[in-house]
Amino acid sequence: MTILDGRKASNDIKDEIKVAVDGMKANGEKVPHLAAVLVGDDGASLTYVGSKVRACERIGFESTLVHLPDTTSEEELLLKIDELNNDNDIDGFIVQLPLPKQIDSQKVLMAVDPKKDVDGFHPENFGKMALGMESFIAATPFGIMELLERHKVETSGKHAVVIGRSNIVGRPMSILLSRKGYPGDCTVTLTHSRTRNMAEITREADIIVSALGVPNFLKADMVKDGVVIIDVGITRVPDESHPKGYVITGDVDFEQVSKKASYITPVPGGVGPMTIAMLLKNTLLARKYRNH
Amino acid sequence: MTILDGRKASNDIKDEIKVAVDGMKANGEKVPHLAAVLVGDDGASLTYVGSKVRACERIGFESTLVHLPDTTSEEELLLKIDELNNDNDIDGFIVQLPLPKQIDSQKVLMAVDPKKDVDGFHPENFGKMALGMESFIAATPFGIMELLERHKVETSGKHAVVIGRSNIVGRPMSILLSRKGYPGDCTVTLTHSRTRNMAEITREADIIVSALGVPNFLKADMVKDGVVIIDVGITRVPDESHPKGYVITGDVDFEQVSKKASYITPVPGGVGPMTIAMLLKNTLLARKYRNH
Repeated sequence: MTILDGRKASNDIKDEIKVAVDGMKANGEKVPHLAAVLVGDDGASLTYVGSKVRACERIGFESTLVHLPDTTSEEELLLKIDELNNDNDIDGFIVQLPLPKQIDSQKVLMAVDPKKDVDGFHPENFGKMALGMESFIAATPFGIMELLERHKVETSGKHAVVIGRSNIVGRPMSILLSRKGYPGDCTVTLTHSRTRNMAEITREADIIVSALGVPNFLKADMVKDGVVIIDVGITRVPDESHPKGYVITGDVDFEQVSKKASYITPVPGGVGPMTIAMLLKNTLLARKYRNH
Repeated sequence: MTILDGRKASNDIKDEIKVAVDGMKANGEKVPHLAAVLVGDDGASLTYVGSKVRACERIGFESTLVHLPDTTSEEELLLKIDELNNDNDIDGFIVQLPLPKQIDSQKVLMAVDPKKDVDGFHPENFGKMALGMESFIAATPFGIMELLERHKVETSGKHAVVIGRSNIVGRPMSILLSRKGYPGDCTVTLTHSRTRNMAEITREADIIVSALGVPNFLKADMVKDGVVIIDVGITRVPDESHPKGYVITGDVDFEQVSKKASYITPVPGGVGPMTIAMLLKNTLLARKYRNH
């Protein structure tokens, strides 16, 4: 059994990007510049955006934090986005979610220029991904594909079962795994809350991607020997013995399922750490596309 | 066993649209206006575009045929598309494929304003469809969903198997059938050329959509009793006894499979006739969206 170690892969990717950025600097080229828009002072959002900005700094990207008050109107935010779309120095930018309730998030995400949409949330980027065109792929599915590739997990002709049909994980994973090429060429079954006989389906799977958000949902009797497990669940389960009062728990009963798996992601330390690395990779791509 | 009769459904839809158009006229509103761009003189393309224009006329739409010589350059075509994008009288338009080889089709399809893309080929429309947003859905998958809905075929919790992962049929069908709502909420398995044990998978299916293009591929021993069959295959099989020298043949061995099916589309007369009706429906929607 091999652990799909997201912390190590994430660090490797950051190191590789740093080498690329150092090369750009040595050649006198403009380095990638990521902007992050944060509206309001939500604690978790501040932490996430802070990590993204710090990650940029460590690998030599330029970064800009646009911090707006939580009273910002939709119109003001759309003006700011228009400004970022037209700012030639910015290669890519993200709008941290959730947004305050006076703002329509969908309208905002639609306003981001797809060429600068390094979160990969714009429908044009989603459509290009689904149609096999060059595009920005959202960090979580992109990170999972990268984890499979870096561990040379076989995918062609394998039966992949994806649990959960969310727009940010399940749906794109079902598409990416069934696209032509590697990692891909899987027969893919997309399952969700309306699926009957879930265990019968997961027992047929060579690869399972679980993005359900139900702690310890996937038990050992639901998988076959040699299965590859990608656990995208991150649920806070109350635990008084822990300093934070909770533990982050995945969808997979790791202790039992790992005995049958050939590869498995731990939670935490699997898919989670990949996301910032993939955002940085998208920003590097954004810079390269703009040079074309 | 019920035949999913595409000719009847298509005529019903056209009748319904005609009623809507008559109402628009009675209210003094602008009626929908579809333009079709045809480059060159390919016989099949002339026939297809001709049918679309005639269908518009019969239901009371305005229509414009833009017929350009086969020596048209990519730049000239892109200028024409820009003109149609900005022509306030045109609600939607299509560019008939294939295009002459000096023209990059993908570049052309990307140039169509997504709001006028009634073929639903632009990645932004594909992405919106996948993300569950309001959008234009390509005629073939849209027509299949309409056939299922008009016959009140149950889909929630059913296992649908889609054969073929093309961008115009298999991929969008796999997405539409797994979206929330009706028709949808299926557990969906997308299969393709790399799939192993195809027959084992199809035998589990409550609904099969076959878009492979291999005549009589799906045999009776590959399906279970009560299955719903959607046959999207249209292959010309040589047949000297026929005036045209060929017969249009589906992916499904209709004679044998129909004995086990609860619902089945014939070929011809199933999915095929739905496409023009759905193009007209998209054009009506385009008119309505522009009124918002």
